[in-house]
Amino acid sequence: MDSHDSQTETDSRTELDQDPAFALHRGGKLQVRSSVDVHDHEGLSLAYTPGVARVCSAIADSPELVDTYTWKSKLVAVVTDGSAVLGLGDIGPEASLPVMEGKSLLFQQFGGVDSVPVALACRDVDDIVETVARMAPSFGGINLEDISAPRCFEIERRLRERLDIPVFHDDQHGTAIVTVAALRNAARLTGRTLADLRVVVSGAGAAGVAVTKMLVEGGIGDIAVADSKGLIYAGREGLNPVKTELAEISNKAGIKGSIETALVGADVFIGLSAGEVPESVVATMAKDAIVCAMANPTPEIHPDVARKYASVVATGRSDFPNQINNVLAFPGVFRGALDVRASDITEGMKLAAANALADLVADDLAADYIIPSTFDERVVPAVAAAVAEQARKDGVARA
Amino acid sequence: MDSHDSQTETDSRTELDQDPAFALHRGGKLQVRSSVDVHDHEGLSLAYTPGVARVCSAIADSPELVDTYTWKSKLVAVVTDGSAVLGLGDIGPEASLPVMEGKSLLFQQFGGVDSVPVALACRDVDDIVETVARMAPSFGGINLEDISAPRCFEIERRLRERLDIPVFHDDQHGTAIVTVAALRNAARLTGRTLADLRVVVSGAGAAGVAVTKMLVEGGIGDIAVADSKGLIYAGREGLNPVKTELAEISNKAGIKGSIETALVGADVFIGLSAGEVPESVVATMAKDAIVCAMANPTPEIHPDVARKYASVVATGRSDFPNQINNVLAFPGVFRGALDVRASDITEGMKLAAANALADLVADDLAADYIIPSTFDERVVPAVAAAVAEQARKDGVARA
Repeated sequence: MDSHDSQTETDSRTELDQDPAFALHRGGKLQVRSSVDVHDHEGLSLAYTPGVARVCSAIADSPELVDTYTWKSKLVAVVTDGSAVLGLGDIGPEASLPVMEGKSLLFQQFGGVDSVPVALACRDVDDIVETVARMAPSFGGINLEDISAPRCFEIERRLRERLDIPVFHDDQHGTAIVTVAALRNAARLTGRTLADLRVVVSGAGAAGVAVTKMLVEGGIGDIAVADSKGLIYAGREGLNPVKTELAEISNKAGIKGSIETALVGADVFIGLSAGEVPESVVATMAKDAIVCAMANPTPEIHPDVARKYASVVATGRSDFPNQINNVLAFPGVFRGALDVRASDITEGMKLAAANALADLVADDLAADYIIPSTFDERVVPAVAAAVAEQARKDGVARA
Repeated sequence: MDSHDSQTETDSRTELDQDPAFALHRGGKLQVRSSVDVHDHEGLSLAYTPGVARVCSAIADSPELVDTYTWKSKLVAVVTDGSAVLGLGDIGPEASLPVMEGKSLLFQQFGGVDSVPVALACRDVDDIVETVARMAPSFGGINLEDISAPRCFEIERRLRERLDIPVFHDDQHGTAIVTVAALRNAARLTGRTLADLRVVVSGAGAAGVAVTKMLVEGGIGDIAVADSKGLIYAGREGLNPVKTELAEISNKAGIKGSIETALVGADVFIGLSAGEVPESVVATMAKDAIVCAMANPTPEIHPDVARKYASVVATGRSDFPNQINNVLAFPGVFRGALDVRASDITEGMKLAAANALADLVADDLAADYIIPSTFDERVVPAVAAAVAEQARKDGVARA
């Protein structure tokens, strides 16, 4: 680079850094530190050769010792291919790194979980599965992140089958755990249970599919899901395998057409899509409606509008009450799973996390408090304990 | 695990931990920390959504910004397949982790370089190359470690061709850099240059091949290499491609037979093999012989024996003078390469590192001081500066 380019780049950086988000990101957000200090030959001979050879030999003889004498069992890989990053879409692995570092930062600060971003330069399902499986000896868990649907479903399923460490696609299950917790409390507040509710979900991506499945598992009354082509029902033409499965377990009423049709008389709207819902449609929902409009930064229904018709309103934003934020789930889920060296994160463990999260609200339950704050320090310990306990019950705990 | 097994394991761990090397390794040797603090919604909105999206978008538009606003350009992957770990051999990826964590610890404490161990569950050259290439968007450099010869040569060559970040097999080049530095000073001490020396190398693994090539590049008089079958010469039956290439550039004298034959009248012995050399053979070396017996923990020639016949003796051990230790090279080499965002580590950069290391000894040169101590704080800055300067000269610097 010649001096002219260099000057231009310096100027452009300075300009970018006037945005505090850029200033904060300069140099990245993570560091690797050693937890032992080597300041002389003796320290070196224990932490490295020759002492380290005895530890290696012991692990070669008794493989389970790797969990005790290395950081493997404490370390999560935050894996992406950069294909579905936030609302930005397919921006590739390098451009996804600030989000992945952010995830690692949240893992550390909220859950005390060490993690490392691994953004992959491949897209094929076989390639991603094979690459993650090959890296797995170094990690105690895999958090899949921002991988586009429907590939994300098969990648997670195959990695869960293949690996003996937890594999968790946060865009699916993190969102589902927090949404189910919020909905459970919203139902309680309005004198109902999940079985009493008819739900409409906008969006059949990673989050929409996982929320729907978890609500069906949790005994929801009925639930209909809409994608960009309208409501999903059994027999709709051109459904991919994931949506075919979704059609089988959802929309018992068999409603066809647009999401507006399904919202007439519906108890719950769950927005995971960024598609706007007109006020006139919100007005057709049932009495004591519950609106969870999670699109960021623009909710599908603005909270001020939603409140006119709904008893409970939640969003993905921190500047309104009832923020549905994955950070309420993933740090505690992995903390709990790693603490007991779980070999998997079961459906039961996810449900236990949702219940623990919902239970924290307890007697403070109110229309503007159906879910704990992201900075509530009780959250991670409660979720982790519930996840660990359920791991033992489900027979996947190894410590 | 039932309570009996659990009890047994606890006892066994307690017993292991009486060895201070195990006690030090409990829980692993590394941590990931965030370099920014997120303690409120505002911090979260800068380090994560929505602020992070602006940084991602900027990188998507201007890919080079990934080096400024993420930790990518600061982060090295320490990659192994666990096939040639220390003197232990093929112990597999999990059992290799204590060494890889140790390497990361040394990177951090000596060079201020962030790195992460990645131990791979695959052995095929194509698989390793492909896996590392897919992970590469997350890293600013690749340190290959403890991968067995001859696969290590092809893996490094192909990754260097394919990636635009430095790829460096430390077992080859780290050892070569330090050995060349030591030998250059030993020659100076005894009134000679590299061109005056006839060298015999014991061992044609990763280190033996790299040391030989670097000495040939550096203008050594002649050099003969022995593997387990004896001296390597052009036309010897059954040579693999790497040894065929070695035969072409070494052993100009065409000596055949055992290493003992070559050592008669030789100026330098370089041991990288663990094969013992009898005292009677050492006695046949030339006047002012130089012995670098680097096998650990048992040098090919014990220093007390070597000193009877040689003017200069070096080993790989910290309890004798002149320790040839890779930690003198790799932290500074990567520090320098990352500082200028080098796209490669060239032969010139390796030679610059060796020269910088040798030059630090300066006027203090003596038979028991041909190479700086591993804890000499001048080493990393000197090596890093020389490597960075040479990167600019070689046109591989990008900052």
